[in-house]
Amino acid sequence: MPTDDSEKTGFADLGFAKVDILRRERQGFPEVIFCQGKTPAQVSAIFGELASRGDVVLATRADAGHFSAVRDALPDARYEELGRCIVWRSGAAATPQADSRAAVLAAGTSDIPVAEEAAVTVGCFGFAVDRLYDVGVAGLHRLLAHAPLLRSARVFIVAAGMEGALPSVVAGLVDKPVIAVPTSIGYGASFGGIAALLGMLNSCGSGVTVVNIDNGFGAGFAAGQILRLANAPANVTKP
Amino acid sequence: MPTDDSEKTGFADLGFAKVDILRRERQGFPEVIFCQGKTPAQVSAIFGELASRGDVVLATRADAGHFSAVRDALPDARYEELGRCIVWRSGAAATPQADSRAAVLAAGTSDIPVAEEAAVTVGCFGFAVDRLYDVGVAGLHRLLAHAPLLRSARVFIVAAGMEGALPSVVAGLVDKPVIAVPTSIGYGASFGGIAALLGMLNSCGSGVTVVNIDNGFGAGFAAGQILRLANAPANVTKP
Amino acid sequence: MPTDDSEKTGFADLGFAKVDILRRERQGFPEVIFCQGKTPAQVSAIFGELASRGDVVLATRADAGHFSAVRDALPDARYEELGRCIVWRSGAAATPQADSRAAVLAAGTSDIPVAEEAAVTVGCFGFAVDRLYDVGVAGLHRLLAHAPLLRSARVFIVAAGMEGALPSVVAGLVDKPVIAVPTSIGYGASFGGIAALLGMLNSCGSGVTVVNIDNGFGAGFAAGQILRLANAPANVTKP
Amino acid sequence: MPTDDSEKTGFADLGFAKVDILRRERQGFPEVIFCQGKTPAQVSAIFGELASRGDVVLATRADAGHFSAVRDALPDARYEELGRCIVWRSGAAATPQADSRAAVLAAGTSDIPVAEEAAVTVGCFGFAVDRLYDVGVAGLHRLLAHAPLLRSARVFIVAAGMEGALPSVVAGLVDKPVIAVPTSIGYGASFGGIAALLGMLNSCGSGVTVVNIDNGFGAGFAAGQILRLANAPANVTKP
Amino acid sequence: MPTDDSEKTGFADLGFAKVDILRRERQGFPEVIFCQGKTPAQVSAIFGELASRGDVVLATRADAGHFSAVRDALPDARYEELGRCIVWRSGAAATPQADSRAAVLAAGTSDIPVAEEAAVTVGCFGFAVDRLYDVGVAGLHRLLAHAPLLRSARVFIVAAGMEGALPSVVAGLVDKPVIAVPTSIGYGASFGGIAALLGMLNSCGSGVTVVNIDNGFGAGFAAGQILRLANAPANVTKP
Amino acid sequence: MPTDDSEKTGFADLGFAKVDILRRERQGFPEVIFCQGKTPAQVSAIFGELASRGDVVLATRADAGHFSAVRDALPDARYEELGRCIVWRSGAAATPQADSRAAVLAAGTSDIPVAEEAAVTVGCFGFAVDRLYDVGVAGLHRLLAHAPLLRSARVFIVAAGMEGALPSVVAGLVDKPVIAVPTSIGYGASFGGIAALLGMLNSCGSGVTVVNIDNGFGAGFAAGQILRLANAPANVTKP
Amino acid sequence: MPTDDSEKTGFADLGFAKVDILRRERQGFPEVIFCQGKTPAQVSAIFGELASRGDVVLATRADAGHFSAVRDALPDARYEELGRCIVWRSGAAATPQADSRAAVLAAGTSDIPVAEEAAVTVGCFGFAVDRLYDVGVAGLHRLLAHAPLLRSARVFIVAAGMEGALPSVVAGLVDKPVIAVPTSIGYGASFGGIAALLGMLNSCGSGVTVVNIDNGFGAGFAAGQILRLANAPANVTKP
Amino acid sequence: MPTDDSEKTGFADLGFAKVDILRRERQGFPEVIFCQGKTPAQVSAIFGELASRGDVVLATRADAGHFSAVRDALPDARYEELGRCIVWRSGAAATPQADSRAAVLAAGTSDIPVAEEAAVTVGCFGFAVDRLYDVGVAGLHRLLAHAPLLRSARVFIVAAGMEGALPSVVAGLVDKPVIAVPTSIGYGASFGGIAALLGMLNSCGSGVTVVNIDNGFGAGFAAGQILRLANAPANVTKP
Repeated sequence: MPTDDSEKTGFADLGFAKVDILRRERQGFPEVIFCQGKTPAQVSAIFGELASRGDVVLATRADAGHFSAVRDALPDARYEELGRCIVWRSGAAATPQADSRAAVLAAGTSDIPVAEEAAVTVGCFGFAVDRLYDVGVAGLHRLLAHAPLLRSARVFIVAAGMEGALPSVVAGLVDKPVIAVPTSIGYGASFGGIAALLGMLNSCGSGVTVVNIDNGFGAGFAAGQILRLANAPANVTKP
Repeated sequence: MPTDDSEKTGFADLGFAKVDILRRERQGFPEVIFCQGKTPAQVSAIFGELASRGDVVLATRADAGHFSAVRDALPDARYEELGRCIVWRSGAAATPQADSRAAVLAAGTSDIPVAEEAAVTVGCFGFAVDRLYDVGVAGLHRLLAHAPLLRSARVFIVAAGMEGALPSVVAGLVDKPVIAVPTSIGYGASFGGIAALLGMLNSCGSGVTVVNIDNGFGAGFAAGQILRLANAPANVTKP
Repeated sequence: MPTDDSEKTGFADLGFAKVDILRRERQGFPEVIFCQGKTPAQVSAIFGELASRGDVVLATRADAGHFSAVRDALPDARYEELGRCIVWRSGAAATPQADSRAAVLAAGTSDIPVAEEAAVTVGCFGFAVDRLYDVGVAGLHRLLAHAPLLRSARVFIVAAGMEGALPSVVAGLVDKPVIAVPTSIGYGASFGGIAALLGMLNSCGSGVTVVNIDNGFGAGFAAGQILRLANAPANVTKP
Repeated sequence: MPTDDSEKTGFADLGFAKVDILRRERQGFPEVIFCQGKTPAQVSAIFGELASRGDVVLATRADAGHFSAVRDALPDARYEELGRCIVWRSGAAATPQADSRAAVLAAGTSDIPVAEEAAVTVGCFGFAVDRLYDVGVAGLHRLLAHAPLLRSARVFIVAAGMEGALPSVVAGLVDKPVIAVPTSIGYGASFGGIAALLGMLNSCGSGVTVVNIDNGFGAGFAAGQILRLANAPANVTKP
Repeated sequence: MPTDDSEKTGFADLGFAKVDILRRERQGFPEVIFCQGKTPAQVSAIFGELASRGDVVLATRADAGHFSAVRDALPDARYEELGRCIVWRSGAAATPQADSRAAVLAAGTSDIPVAEEAAVTVGCFGFAVDRLYDVGVAGLHRLLAHAPLLRSARVFIVAAGMEGALPSVVAGLVDKPVIAVPTSIGYGASFGGIAALLGMLNSCGSGVTVVNIDNGFGAGFAAGQILRLANAPANVTKP
Repeated sequence: MPTDDSEKTGFADLGFAKVDILRRERQGFPEVIFCQGKTPAQVSAIFGELASRGDVVLATRADAGHFSAVRDALPDARYEELGRCIVWRSGAAATPQADSRAAVLAAGTSDIPVAEEAAVTVGCFGFAVDRLYDVGVAGLHRLLAHAPLLRSARVFIVAAGMEGALPSVVAGLVDKPVIAVPTSIGYGASFGGIAALLGMLNSCGSGVTVVNIDNGFGAGFAAGQILRLANAPANVTKP
Repeated sequence: MPTDDSEKTGFADLGFAKVDILRRERQGFPEVIFCQGKTPAQVSAIFGELASRGDVVLATRADAGHFSAVRDALPDARYEELGRCIVWRSGAAATPQADSRAAVLAAGTSDIPVAEEAAVTVGCFGFAVDRLYDVGVAGLHRLLAHAPLLRSARVFIVAAGMEGALPSVVAGLVDKPVIAVPTSIGYGASFGGIAALLGMLNSCGSGVTVVNIDNGFGAGFAAGQILRLANAPANVTKP
Repeated sequence: MPTDDSEKTGFADLGFAKVDILRRERQGFPEVIFCQGKTPAQVSAIFGELASRGDVVLATRADAGHFSAVRDALPDARYEELGRCIVWRSGAAATPQADSRAAVLAAGTSDIPVAEEAAVTVGCFGFAVDRLYDVGVAGLHRLLAHAPLLRSARVFIVAAGMEGALPSVVAGLVDKPVIAVPTSIGYGASFGGIAALLGMLNSCGSGVTVVNIDNGFGAGFAAGQILRLANAPANVTKP
């Protein structure tokens, strides 16, 4: 049976999991729950533990069953269906900072779930997000028509499958960091996202950085860290 | 010692090579010499054999030594240094047909040798070529500024290394066939052109077809076949 | 709720998709619907939108459910079961041009679905197709017996799995463009079509170009573009 | 012969290269010269062209011969030997901003050239760099002993070959963005950096983003963009 | 119908399997049953055969059905659910040797099944095991806090998925053999454990040896062999 | 210093090598020397050792230096330059058996060295060889014209690079064993022979077996074993 | 509706398949039916067609449903369950030739289905087969104990998964052809048989040839061709 | 200029390298110098630094130039040419313990350098080594004849290239730990040691562990750790 000596050990022992309660202090964001492969009951228990110690909780790769279990315990948790995330924010959580915005782009309709996972993650850091979906390079006018959005964002997340060309094009148009997310969309020689991943790693656009295939959360986390820097006074420490 | 019974066998036996003399009749273009791995003397001998039977000869992947040996025997052979090709045309060869043009694009300066191999090959079919180099997707304005050229071409050859995104962008702008040539330009995870090859095979642009890495000749050959069709009257047979 | 400002934006916003209505003008063929991963209702809605603006609509990778939903709205839509395509042509669509033919070859019986997807796509461009199936290189006499068909076609699409050798043999016999389609047929070290793909990229037949594994649509689209060129007067513009 | 109509075309045509003179305006940093595969004379000419139009010029993958040619024309150019870069800054270039620092870490001695390429690039953006080399995970005490440096940096670049584990460890200790650079150091199953690349893409540390193998420049460029954001007032535009 | 001439042939012929009854004499441990792909009845029959000839039997990759069949015949068999193993020990089996301990570490919760398979295997050799789970490198303090456990173990088994960095860190802290087990945990470019496998093969920690992906049994077997050596007097022979 | 107790140990110890003198008895052919990576003196010593005990010696991957050293000791050794082999036959060696023939085919001129290594090996078994080179599938008439040769051979060795299609075509025409040898000839996505290897493993021709890339010796050895069987009376034992 | 002009075309057209009726004449064995992906009705129809024209029919990868349909039409067809084959022999088929035997070995129990497919195929050629299963290299005494069987066979088929080492060991012990069949048995880094395939291609045993992963039929077909040669008088033609 | 505050920092700073002086205390063996990529002067300086603080120094991948520089400073250093190592032992170093032996096996002559690197490393731990070279599975009698050696060793290191089958065979014969070292020996589809690596990871022999390709040092280090355990009294601590 788990006991609570978390103050001493630095983690809360739930038996099937050890919740790292120092994560927020070290990294500026509490531990995030990866739901895939966990039962609804397990997710709900970890979620509750984190909610009792912080003001924002995020669970990714969650299905309806996971959400149902979480909501039973925390009625004000919210399910972001497109991005497959469960989010809970305490009343004490800061208001989103609208003047520090991320732009999240998706090349095709099928890339939207990954893009949404990224967008929800950025939102959990307390920043605003502009979405621009279905703007792949086969119809460039759709991207070029959104110049104001491209100018107002301070960091870009670009999700694309198939040949993964969109981040290169975006990086050639803006002077802000571009984080590329390859998606597993495609068939034949796309190899579950490898074609897009290689394309992004070899981007001719300067300064493009890349996360793992379908890792919308990782891109959103990196963008949140960047926006936090952009928002902080010069002698920034922990938020 | 080789003997000439080529009329009967359908090839000229030079000892170290059997020159296929039916190739032009079957495929509409004489056998092409791939110089890599052949000595200057061998290339010169095959070149002479083909020149004695046709009105255009093309040798690819040729270095200065190969050309020197060919020129000794055929003073009016020409060395296309950028594309590493040797070309010879008889006086009887047809005048290039200026109204049927191919456009050859290269994403970066380093892709030019491959693009030139393609351009020279198209020229050997008797068609005109417009070159548009260093127009990679990191600076789209350079491509978009050449609308007239994009409109006048009847077939496109697009060479690119790194992420290989340029063919997708071109295919989204034109209504003509686009042949993509991945080049081995890049480093790290470009894997000698595999990243570009996969990108092109997974292109979101409809109708893009692909040839082997660095195979400018193959792209030029396919473009020549297409232009020949475009130029022929409806009941086309062999040119 | 979607609104219709498509004239201004260049796309019709259906909420779950942005239908590119400039595609036909730019590329000479309207946007094509990739059904895999879309619900019957979504496919039907996009299909209707495209039918209201053009005279031919094509949907690929469609199953019976997709077709049922489309037919409810457009009773004269047709389901091409072998090629898994839905096709609709308005009464205003041009009569197929019988003197400009594509030949579609399949090496084995299992390659037929991919070959049919290509054949249906060529048909949507308004051209005639000759089919030649089960003519793999293990029994060459079956191919060689069809000389008239090989002579009459102006472009070739060759689908093959396993070692993918058929396009090389065909390219050695004809003087027209050959588009090779690797299929995912095979087992063991065929790696879902990679063996065939590599075989085709390394073809010793000059001028063979290649599309992605199982991408019959891409091959048909490229063939359609080529036939359009072959059919157009010298000063060709949009059809 | 090249002519100067760069104001109209947006690039300076040197014959062998088209120098993009709009790059700085679009991306906030002038075009960077990749020396590998270019002659000293070519590098020197492009370098001079860029120096005549801006206040900082960077050339990467440069050897002693490239530098010698550049120095003949621009005596105050500097060669950063460890990072294989040539740098030139005009008198008008801004003073480095010491309170906005990047930390550049290298796991082993052999990773230093890649790390230095990153450090020099950050320096060209006008920011200070702290170097921490030979701190691989086989001797963690060397990393943990540098807590002050880890606290003062606003962005981290971590270069590592072999298993590429260092970025994960660093990301677990800090709350700032971590950019991972796999290097081609290793042997056997390291596959020229692929093992490190895969390790970094699969990092268990949240928010790690990755650039191509040995791409120190890319990491430095991304870090420069991030520091620029961190330094800018809220309504940031071009620096 | 199988007959018992096992004394002569060296194996017991059950028809569907030939049980090697010399294995224990040759290798110091009886043949182990790999259940995957075998029916419950087959596993039960082999299990019984081995129990009749030795004092410990181990079956790996066993599900509840396999166990049910074994327990019907051998009521004192035990099912190790987490590690998916069935274990039976005769009363004559030696008491575990508590002063010769293996430490089994798992980087994350998802790696526990593989770690448990290793731990159960070590136990079958008659040695004690200390478990230390969920101590991945993203929170190093959890590992560093267990110094006594790290000092008391004589051999280490370290299971990790994703980037597989934990074995390198452990090897840098201890002076005992470290056996690394990559697990198939991860997604995207983890490729079912290949990323972790490559990371471990390229470990910068001296003396790390590696077993196949998810092969907890193999790691436990090697650890058992090592502990047996560590426990034996100098002129060790068979136990 | 090596001593001769080879009768007891079953090998002759030359210090730098242990020559297996039982190989001929076990496998019907003496040990073969792989010269690559051995000095001329080493090759000469092993060659002499084998010549003193048998009536045929074969050394593969030999250069002129290796041959020069061997000839100094054995003046009647012969260098097969095209196949890079050194061969010596005693006067007692059997006369070649002309009625049991192997056919060795090469798709292109560049495949000849590998084909010759196979042909020389077959010759060492004492069988006759018919060579048919430069008969790739791009010009099928060259192969089809040699029907008599195809009928008279009892086993086929087919070497091909690029897409490796020739063995499939041959297997479709004959009723004898076909051994396929992929060669490393090609470029781009041929990957040093992998494309040809995969093509041959996936051959649609029944009964094709494959050896390693460039392994002409292996193919020749297998063919020699087959011809020996074909030549032997029913109760065959060792030759 | 299919019509019978097979005498003229060389194949029987069943609509969904073209049965090659010249195969037996060309290759010495009638076309073989690969059942996977075909319906029971289709298999039954092709099976009947072939039975009406020859004296042996073989269908591979057949399940119980396929067999049921075949047996309804041909009551004396036989289902070889272990090898998943359907076999039919006419009364006129030759009696098996017991003095010309193949040995079929399997390294482990899981390799038996592939080995049986090979054994059944050899049987269809009219030769006898000795089976030797579960003799992997982890217990060499099991193989070495069967010396008589190893001496009496004239050709060897060796199926193995995992590291695929058994063919090398067998080839070192015998002087007859060894055909290696990698199986997809294994897990982790066995990659569905690639590890075994590579091991066999790199075998240190001379003369080992290899077929595709799990391709028992291919190995059996090659062995049948070899035994036919071994059995034929010197002036062999078609059997 | 480097200064000596190594007592405080835990490493000696030589400017171009930071020598970890706590390594011996932590891991039981001083830091080992990997010479590849270091100049003779650098190696000599690090070597001297380590010799001044311990009683054994090992440098791997050393060439004659490295040794010459080391010997100038330390005349009693020894060059192990076959294994490419430099070794120095102080007079205070312990006498080798002859009753605790490792057996080092090599499958072929070409694997000897890797095997020797392992043997020299074991020797540096103060243990005896028995060498058994050229005992590959193509001639099993050579291995089986050395039963006494196989019985006396307490740990086995087995180096093999090509198909890497030897460790499986050895593991089936002994009851001690077997460490497998794949070597890069081979050609064609051996892929620089990958075939051997995969073979060893998939070994059917229980308890085989594997190190990186050509990593003789790693295997020797692991063997040294195991022998140290085997030699220690039960309450072993640091040696």
